[in-house]
Parts: sequence; C-alpha cells; structure tokens
Amino acid sequence: MASGSPKSQLPKFQAPKGTRDFYPQDLAVRRYIEGVWRSVSINHGFDEIDGPTIEHLDLYTHKSGPGIASELFQVFSGKDEEQVAAMRAGGLAPFALRPEFTPTLARMVAAKANSLPMPIKWFAIPSHFRAERPQRGRLREFMQWNVDFLGDDSPRADAEVIATAVAALERLGLNSQQVKLRINDRFLVDEALGFLEYPPDRWNDAYALFDRRAKQTESEFAKDAASIGFSADDTRHLQLFLSMKGSLSSHEFENWHKKSDDETESVSVLVSDRFGKLADELTSLRIADWCELDLSIVRGLAYYTGTVFEIIADGERAIAGGGRYDKLIESFGGPPMPACGFGMGDVVLANILNDKGLLKSEMEYLPRPHAFVIAANDEAAANLPGIVSRLRRKGFHIRHSYKTTRHVGKLLGDANKARALTAVILGDKLNENTVELKDLASGEQRDVNLDQLPEVLRPLIDRHALDS
Amino acid sequence: MASGSPKSQLPKFQAPKGTRDFYPQDLAVRRYIEGVWRSVSINHGFDEIDGPTIEHLDLYTHKSGPGIASELFQVFSGKDEEQVAAMRAGGLAPFALRPEFTPTLARMVAAKANSLPMPIKWFAIPSHFRAERPQRGRLREFMQWNVDFLGDDSPRADAEVIATAVAALERLGLNSQQVKLRINDRFLVDEALGFLEYPPDRWNDAYALFDRRAKQTESEFAKDAASIGFSADDTRHLQLFLSMKGSLSSHEFENWHKKSDDETESVSVLVSDRFGKLADELTSLRIADWCELDLSIVRGLAYYTGTVFEIIADGERAIAGGGRYDKLIESFGGPPMPACGFGMGDVVLANILNDKGLLKSEMEYLPRPHAFVIAANDEAAANLPGIVSRLRRKGFHIRHSYKTTRHVGKLLGDANKARALTAVILGDKLNENTVELKDLASGEQRDVNLDQLPEVLRPLIDRHALDS
Repeated sequence: MASGSPKSQLPKFQAPKGTRDFYPQDLAVRRYIEGVWRSVSINHGFDEIDGPTIEHLDLYTHKSGPGIASELFQVFSGKDEEQVAAMRAGGLAPFALRPEFTPTLARMVAAKANSLPMPIKWFAIPSHFRAERPQRGRLREFMQWNVDFLGDDSPRADAEVIATAVAALERLGLNSQQVKLRINDRFLVDEALGFLEYPPDRWNDAYALFDRRAKQTESEFAKDAASIGFSADDTRHLQLFLSMKGSLSSHEFENWHKKSDDETESVSVLVSDRFGKLADELTSLRIADWCELDLSIVRGLAYYTGTVFEIIADGERAIAGGGRYDKLIESFGGPPMPACGFGMGDVVLANILNDKGLLKSEMEYLPRPHAFVIAANDEAAANLPGIVSRLRRKGFHIRHSYKTTRHVGKLLGDANKARALTAVILGDKLNENTVELKDLASGEQRDVNLDQLPEVLRPLIDRHALDS
Repeated sequence: MASGSPKSQLPKFQAPKGTRDFYPQDLAVRRYIEGVWRSVSINHGFDEIDGPTIEHLDLYTHKSGPGIASELFQVFSGKDEEQVAAMRAGGLAPFALRPEFTPTLARMVAAKANSLPMPIKWFAIPSHFRAERPQRGRLREFMQWNVDFLGDDSPRADAEVIATAVAALERLGLNSQQVKLRINDRFLVDEALGFLEYPPDRWNDAYALFDRRAKQTESEFAKDAASIGFSADDTRHLQLFLSMKGSLSSHEFENWHKKSDDETESVSVLVSDRFGKLADELTSLRIADWCELDLSIVRGLAYYTGTVFEIIADGERAIAGGGRYDKLIESFGGPPMPACGFGMGDVVLANILNDKGLLKSEMEYLPRPHAFVIAANDEAAANLPGIVSRLRRKGFHIRHSYKTTRHVGKLLGDANKARALTAVILGDKLNENTVELKDLASGEQRDVNLDQLPEVLRPLIDRHALDS
C-alpha cells in the first residue's frame, strides 16, 4: 500500500465492481428466490447437479471461437510457472470462470451418457461470471438457475421445461399479465433467411443482428443489417418478419415472399406446423396464457436448433432465455442427444419482483427463532448457556441476549425484535425445574417443566411452519 | 482443436484437475452435509452471509505479503486490455479466487461496522480455491463452512463457536471418540518463544515450523528448526513443549525454564490461567469431552491472537481449524473488534464420514417424490400431463414414466425405483374423476376423488417428513 496520511494506511477494501456482498438480509432474499427455484425444480422431477466454478478455457472457445476469451474472466494458477510464463508470452489463460452452465452440462452428459438413465432432467443454481461493464440487470457475478431436459425430442420436453419456468414465476407472485414467455423457432428464422437467400455461413451474424434489434432504432438496425450484406429491400422484409407476434392458438401472419421467384409461403401455416403440438401441450398444462409467439426472438447463441424463448417483463432485460439445442451434446464428444433448457438469472428477476412490490421486507425472509431465552435473575443467567445448548442440540433455533440486563420487559422486546416465536423465561421457579413459556403471537403464557420444553415447543413450531 | 484422426475431432473435455463434477447423487451428499451445517448454524443463532467468488488480489497480499499470490488462482478480465497488458508486462492479476473466507468477512464487517447490531454472529458456506497439487483431502475447489462470532472478547464466544462445530459433527453421526477438538492458545506459544528469547519478528516463521511438525520426522523438524535459528538445545525444549497434551480440566505439565536466567514457570498454572474460564464454559455446554489441550496446535495463519484449535480424526488432515483473531477487523480499516471463528471443509469431512460408515447410500439423500403418476390406459395417458402439472403447481414433487408402456406392474416398479412415497394410478374410473392412490410403504390402496387428491396426499407427506 502507498504510504502517506494515516488514513491511507488503512486501505478501504471493496468488493470487485459488479460483484455483491450479501449481508444477512440480502442473502435471505437470494435464498428465498433460490429456494423457490429449487423446490419448483424438484416438484417437476428435476435432479440437482453442480460443476466446477472454473473450466478449461477451450470448453468455451471450442464452440464459440477464440473471440469469446475476451468476454470471460480468465484464470491461471499463480503457482504454475509454465502457465504464468505462457500467459506473459501473449497466450490465453488455461481456465475461465464459467459464463454460462450449458457447456459444463454438455461435458458432464457426454462423459457419462451411456450410464445415465434417460431422459436426463437436471437443474443447477450456480454462480456465473461475465467480463462486462456492470449495468442495471447485468452484474459480473450473478446466480443463474439452469433447467435442462435431455434425451427427448418431442414438444412435451419443451413444454415441461417451460412449465417449470412458469411455475417458479407464479410461485414468486408474478402473473401472465406482468411477464410473457416470448417464443419462436429457429426453423422459422432460418426459413426467412433462406427466402432472402442469405448465405448460411453468415447466419450466426444474422442471429446476432436480430438479437440486438430490441435495443436499436430502426435506422441503427438498417445500418447494421447493411453492414452484414442485407439490401434495403431485404431489411424491409426482415423488419416485417421480426415484428410478427401473436397468441399460440390464434394468429394470422402476412404471407412471406421468396426473393428469387416470388413464390409465396403462408407464415401462419408454417407457424401452425411448427407450434401446433407444443401449443397443445402448453394448453393441457394450462400455461398457454403465459406464452406468445414472437418471431423476433432468436437467442444469439449458436447452439440453438429449434424452439427458442425469452421471458420478458416490459422495459427490462430478459428474465430468462432458453430453447432446444439438439446438436450440442454430440459436439462435446457425446452421443447424438436431443436437449432443451433455459437459464434464469437472479438479478433481473429480483429487480422485477421489487418493482412489482412482490418482495416482503427483507427481515421477513430471515429464519425465525423458535425461542428467545431470557434469564430473569443471576442464578438463571448462570444456567442459561447449558439450557440454550441442550435445546439447540435437539434441533431448535434458539437466540438469547448477550447483554447483561435482567430487565424482563426489555428482553421480551429483544425477543420480538428477533421475530422469535416464543420466549422462554428462566425465573424464580428454575430451582423447581420450571420455566415460563410465552407464545409471542398470542401472548399466552404458562409454566412448563424444563424437561418437557422440547415436546411443548415442537407443535408450536410445526403450527407456525404450516401458517407460513 | 488439432486436426487428425476422427477421434481427436471430438475432444474429450474434462473438469480441471482438482475440481469436481457433482452428478445428482454426488450433489445430494454435498447438500446433506451443507444442510447440517446450515441448520446447526441457524439453531445456534448465526445469520448466513455470502461474498464475491473473486476478490481484489490485494485483499490477500495486504496481510500475507505478495508471496501469497503464488498460492492463488489469479483472475483478470479478458476484455480489459490494460489488465491484460499489465499482466503480460510481468505484473500480478488484479483479482484472485478466494482461498479462504475470513478476509472477505473482515472487509464486510469493516465496511458496515457502525451500523451492524452487536455481537455479529455470521456463517457462510461458499466455495474456495487453492492453487495446489490435489491430493487426498485437498482439492483445488472445495466447499467450506465458516462460522464467526465478532464483538465479544469473552471465552463464551470461543465456547459458542466451538459448540457449533461440535453440534454439526454430532448431527452427522460422529462422536468424541472418533474426532477431537485440539485446542491451544497463541499466548502459550508466544510465552514459550519468549522464554527461548526467539526474536519476535520471526515468530511467524516459528508458527509455520510448528504447523508442519505433524507431517515431519524428528530429524526433519530439527533441521527446519535450525534453518530458522533455533539451537539444538532450543529445539529439544520446543519438542518437549509441543508434545504437551492433556484434558481441559485435569492436566499436569512439566515446568518451563527461561533461557537466560533459569527462572521456572509452571506451564500447568499458565494453562489454567488461560483456559480456566473456557474450560468452564465448555463444561457447562457439555462438550468438554470433545476437547483436548494440545500445545502443538498453532494454525499457521498470521492473524490468530488467542485461542487456536483444530478438529482432527486420527490419520487425516484437519476437518476444521479456527481461533481468535482480535486484530484483523481493525487491520482492514474497521474499528477494534474482538473476533473468533472457524472453517470446516467438505472434502476431509466427507472422507471421514465415509470411512466411519456414516453416509447412507447416495440415493437416499435424493428428495423422495410425493407421488409417481401412472396412466393405465390411453385416455389416462392423454390426461396425465394436466393432472401432473396441477399437482406440481400445488407444491407436490411428482414424477411419472416417460415410457409409453401401460403395464401397471412395471410402472409400479418404476415408482418404487424412484423411491416415491405413493403411486397415483389413472385408470378406468378416471371418467368418474376417481384415481387409485397406493401407499408404497404400506401397500394400502384406495380410490380417491381427483379433486381431493391434494388434501389426501398432504398428511401422507407430512407423516413421512416426521419419520425421516
């Protein structure tokens, strides 16, 4: 550290920009969201997995090319002199912090594909990292819920994955008016690009262009389209195509004209062909009202092969994105295996829950103490640690004051402040092995034999668990 | 990727050495351990926190010097050209993967010390990283439970922290015969070094020497001791001192002779002075039998100031280590604040639980489905997705077969294999809105109205939750 004034000798350390410190109340909210993700996943029959926080860098460059390295946090062992020397010579680092979970999942499936029972239904809730400038809804480290269904190429897999996402949003208090799952199929996008006779080796550029469109003005989009070879006429057609929206069951789209021979194709028929079965599945799962066709959704990532979707609340970044990626497992050395899934981050989601007033006061997400133990006199104070310890070892959540006051009224105030369900008062009858138990909700108070306290506390706590 | 045989075109990606892929059954075991850590922490009145996975590198070099950088995984943004250029010019990376949680905790406490209610009782269960060669009990990425009690300099804080560690071991099935908490006080170590007139500016070297001792032969230790300036006579004294062990309540140690003037000090008196109050606290918490005085325990880290301890099962690395660090918060820019805590990793702990036969079959840690839904005919099969979806949205964990068989016996086999609590059979009475519910433990079977199924399932599930 630089020497100087006394103040500069005590450096103020801070979390790296775009990362978060989670104090108890912050983490309680995150755990609430993760808890909903986890229980909804399990209810829907998904098993939880996890992978390393760092992966070999080439796990990411393999599919996306070396350019991706500049969007990653790169990692090397400070101990490994070869690695350090290679890096200093201008190479890339050997590892990266995972920017998304799908490559890890693909690697794990490919490694054990022959011994895993089918279909594979997995979820994960790890942290992810992006070497980007932090902004609203976008941090450098964030939590992301990943849900994947592998080994089933039918629309019922897409539907089940979508139903899982919707169930979580519903459990968090959101409704189908507040957020929409905008859905498309890469087939339709490719069909449109084919009609325009756009060269297939540049389709990834087109996907990236479409992905940026929502954030651009019409003229910015036209300029970008021109820069990757679309004529003004093509661009007009693209704008028309990308603005097509409708409900899953009833939609009427304008026809599409083939560039070279003016052949016409009914987009409505194409959409019905591609979405008919999925629409039926979503209807039978009673979540069709959450979904909307939107031909502008492409998801930039190169690995999607069919259904693609984003979950969006107006004016915010996507809450979640996903789709079908039927070729990815094979490309990681596994067998051919159809797959679909989505990722949902915690940052945008928490912003939206906040904006819609769907988060309670942070305090309310902290676990409530089963009892707050109070010593009313000195003898009781001497016995308090042993009594508290026995209750804790029996599985109860017990708090007590660390202050030395014996002022019971004040300590009852502390018990309420700690949101305890009960107060256990160690008073004059302690030598008869008797304590006072006060239900802090009802105010009801009674004497309880100390040995019976666990039995008496248990149903009180169970009742509260059912209420909450 | 290198071109070559078709096989080499499908690269086999693997997790980085020393990191782990957690398939469902692996993660279920980890979640079981983490669940015990979390609930024991909450029962003992600790609040959960979390911090960033990466920290500024100087958070670690600040206390430990630049040498620590070679033991860390260093991190930089691939996007930030200045960072990349600085690194290539021979500098250190700006960030590191956290090797331990205490510096993050100290930073977080220092940043908000004035607004946090006292005492601060926090726990965290994040992943940590070490740039070391992986070996038994030591991985490059591992989970670690951190428990810290700040703002209280009395032995009751040490005792409560120790009680929390012991309660977790006990909950996991270990007993005081299988593992011991070996405890010492830096004061005693410093007293011994003072008697030997070893220069205080080299005490950190001595701590590191003592820390290595358990893994060394006597002559290796003597050689290392000589290399940092201990005479042969000093080394003999050190060996005597470091081999002193005893119970907390009754111990008889040989006296200690001062080097320069042959003054004698009773180690037994010293120990009683330092440990008397803590021993009383541990006794009143009924965990004294888990603890043993061991004057060889120093914990290498420079920040410990008082009590130090390790939890050890014979023949293994330490399960946990901790102690008192009363100066650390201040050194990170916070106010003077006494503190103590410990860290317990998942790798050694799981090895020991395995060795002692304390882990059940991995399958048994997976959450059990509340119901496995079976379609006995084609009409039922058409109705299955909607019925399953409604139960899931009501919070039930529901599985079903993705195979097309209508062979009920085979599907009941699948239900048992999935460890479901019940089977719900959609059969001929489905048009009367009636299904069969089979309790898979008792074999009992009865007709249930579909609308009443949630009410009927709920108590079955609650009963199971109480059994487990």
